[in-house]
Amino acid sequence: MKADIITIGDEILIGQTLDTNSAWIGNELESNGIHVNQITSISDSSDHIISCLSNSLENVDFVFITGGLGPTKDDITKKTLCDFFEDELVLNQEVLAKITHYFAERGRTVNDYTKLQALVPSRCQVITNHKGTAPGMWFDYNGKVIVSMPGVPHEMKNMMLFVINELKRKYNLLEIVHKTVYTRGVIESVLAETIAEWEEALPKEIKLAYLPSISCLMLRLSVRGTDKLFLENLIDKNIQSLKPLLGKYYSPVQKRLSEEVVAELLFQKKATISTAESCTGGNIAKMLTSISGSSSYFLGSLVAYSTQVKEEMLNISPELISTFGVVSEEVVCEMALSSKKIFNSDYAVATSGLASNEDLDGVKGGTICFAVATPNEVFSQTVVFNTSRQENIQRASNKVLNYLISLF
Amino acid sequence: MKADIITIGDEILIGQTLDTNSAWIGNELESNGIHVNQITSISDSSDHIISCLSNSLENVDFVFITGGLGPTKDDITKKTLCDFFEDELVLNQEVLAKITHYFAERGRTVNDYTKLQALVPSRCQVITNHKGTAPGMWFDYNGKVIVSMPGVPHEMKNMMLFVINELKRKYNLLEIVHKTVYTRGVIESVLAETIAEWEEALPKEIKLAYLPSISCLMLRLSVRGTDKLFLENLIDKNIQSLKPLLGKYYSPVQKRLSEEVVAELLFQKKATISTAESCTGGNIAKMLTSISGSSSYFLGSLVAYSTQVKEEMLNISPELISTFGVVSEEVVCEMALSSKKIFNSDYAVATSGLASNEDLDGVKGGTICFAVATPNEVFSQTVVFNTSRQENIQRASNKVLNYLISLF
Repeated sequence: MKADIITIGDEILIGQTLDTNSAWIGNELESNGIHVNQITSISDSSDHIISCLSNSLENVDFVFITGGLGPTKDDITKKTLCDFFEDELVLNQEVLAKITHYFAERGRTVNDYTKLQALVPSRCQVITNHKGTAPGMWFDYNGKVIVSMPGVPHEMKNMMLFVINELKRKYNLLEIVHKTVYTRGVIESVLAETIAEWEEALPKEIKLAYLPSISCLMLRLSVRGTDKLFLENLIDKNIQSLKPLLGKYYSPVQKRLSEEVVAELLFQKKATISTAESCTGGNIAKMLTSISGSSSYFLGSLVAYSTQVKEEMLNISPELISTFGVVSEEVVCEMALSSKKIFNSDYAVATSGLASNEDLDGVKGGTICFAVATPNEVFSQTVVFNTSRQENIQRASNKVLNYLISLF
Repeated sequence: MKADIITIGDEILIGQTLDTNSAWIGNELESNGIHVNQITSISDSSDHIISCLSNSLENVDFVFITGGLGPTKDDITKKTLCDFFEDELVLNQEVLAKITHYFAERGRTVNDYTKLQALVPSRCQVITNHKGTAPGMWFDYNGKVIVSMPGVPHEMKNMMLFVINELKRKYNLLEIVHKTVYTRGVIESVLAETIAEWEEALPKEIKLAYLPSISCLMLRLSVRGTDKLFLENLIDKNIQSLKPLLGKYYSPVQKRLSEEVVAELLFQKKATISTAESCTGGNIAKMLTSISGSSSYFLGSLVAYSTQVKEEMLNISPELISTFGVVSEEVVCEMALSSKKIFNSDYAVATSGLASNEDLDGVKGGTICFAVATPNEVFSQTVVFNTSRQENIQRASNKVLNYLISLF
């Protein structure tokens, strides 16, 4: 079974809003054996919605539409779909009752704009919105399914749980098996050369993709068919023969995000960590605490942005700073050791540098010094980035965590 | 002039990679008077690339393609475009020299996979890749322009600077003026009712869009034509008549992100801030330091994840914690005051709560208490979120900063 995803909203086309829904829906569909054929973003224009939908209905079995269901005038998806299916909008009392209740709970009364949301095409199946007010709509049309949902991510996601279950119940979905192998410390062209013979010998029904990311380089193997167990075994067999070729590039924990790998390694060792951050401004702490259960290994962080805070709270000697400069490996080593001490943690990482690309006090913009303190030692490194401020911070944070991973 | 954006790569369709390129390109094009008609994501399949490109060439003047230019076998964009334009791949010595230099700088040698990147269609104009190895390609075709770029964001962005300049030089681009009005503390349906008469009276050439986001609710007015000054005046006039209707919802600083508004307000007041974060794990510090120049107002942060750190480093009395619980407004008020004191800042914010949705020690999952200390007072609030762990953290952080904004 194949599906298209259509996202409606000018704000996506002009880049004011990042479309995160399509990626999420794509992942859900693929994991449930529905192959995603195309993702399309179009404006709030009924002609374009209709031409795009017609095109999708020629190519796929299911069409998932998000956006354009708000209460305001620029939202025209519902009316357009209603016209397309030659249907009429009727007031749905259940939806109205739900909206009224939703507003009452929040101490608000329903106004005329909100009431419009209770109008739905007469022949669609309403998908209850448990997280907001705009109802979702399910249309059966010439053996195909068209689902329209709000663009608000958590409202859409909640509806998709119901939609996926309905599709599973009604259709015999083809199996797709994806497995990903995570590598660290290697670039794409070197990896390609390392595994060239293995890649050449892959059964042709297995599709291989190289997926570089800021935290690792992934190899994804995909195969589709009817017998899930057979497909999984086929992929597993090929991953088994790949592993020895990867050697030290094979990630010790097979997870994508560096913070996930650090979390798992600390958890296995029953070890704790703290951070002392200057230029990364708390971003490493934020990454480490984004993992559920992080309180078992993350103790705390001191974001020491000003030199005074570095001196007073991290006990870095003013002499060290004046001798080597605040952006120096000497200073970050002391910061990491101090962090380990004041938080009483087994490991600590520290950063100091210039997140922006402008040079300052003789230091090149984008220069970031970092240190990693392990139970017995401290290591440091200097790197220079040259992307945007926020990307420099993100790259530096990943670099620090990947360096930490290499020391375990 | 109209454009389509085509993103190539299975990893986007199955949601393994979030397509941030299209939003960025869309924004660049719109700000330069090129209307984005459609964004499409498709797989690394030559048939699909060709059908999608053919379809775009029927509807628009310019097509921007990203992805599928890597050195590995799953990347087929270059070969496909070469076939489509009935051209042949030739070795480009300049590109090869650049790649060799790029690798040499990094202490690596060029292998056969990397050399493949120096092959380009004979009739395309090469767009130099200043940030990586895969060259971009510009094709003139029946009066239209097709540009193919790597999917790596900072490589693509750098190339787009050149591409936009070329387009400006060669084409007479129509003007598009977008202006955005930022509101805070109001939901979409209430805002729609508040400005209904104004909206009804808008000249029909002005398009209005409501854009809700996690940090604010934006109203975007757009108009296109030939006389930029006339268009700007037309929009400005309508924004002037809108402002008084918005009243307290009108954001004091007209910027999107809450951290940008906080930065601007602190900057205006020459005031400083610090944070003491538990459940937000450094995310508020990370947001505040994502702004260039943040060292002029942000002093530091203590991420006090464990209770011990709260007691020892923030001097929160164990009695207070045992009486009210660590997730309580009483405790966060003390944390904020303590943060203000130890960092010697004018303002401070503090958080304590459960980022995940699981209940713990009688506290409902997603409960977050926060406090804002101003120079003379301290305020607190409790909110309960029910999205994912990471979204709970992000929403809480925005809530704290928006609360702070309301106190200025």
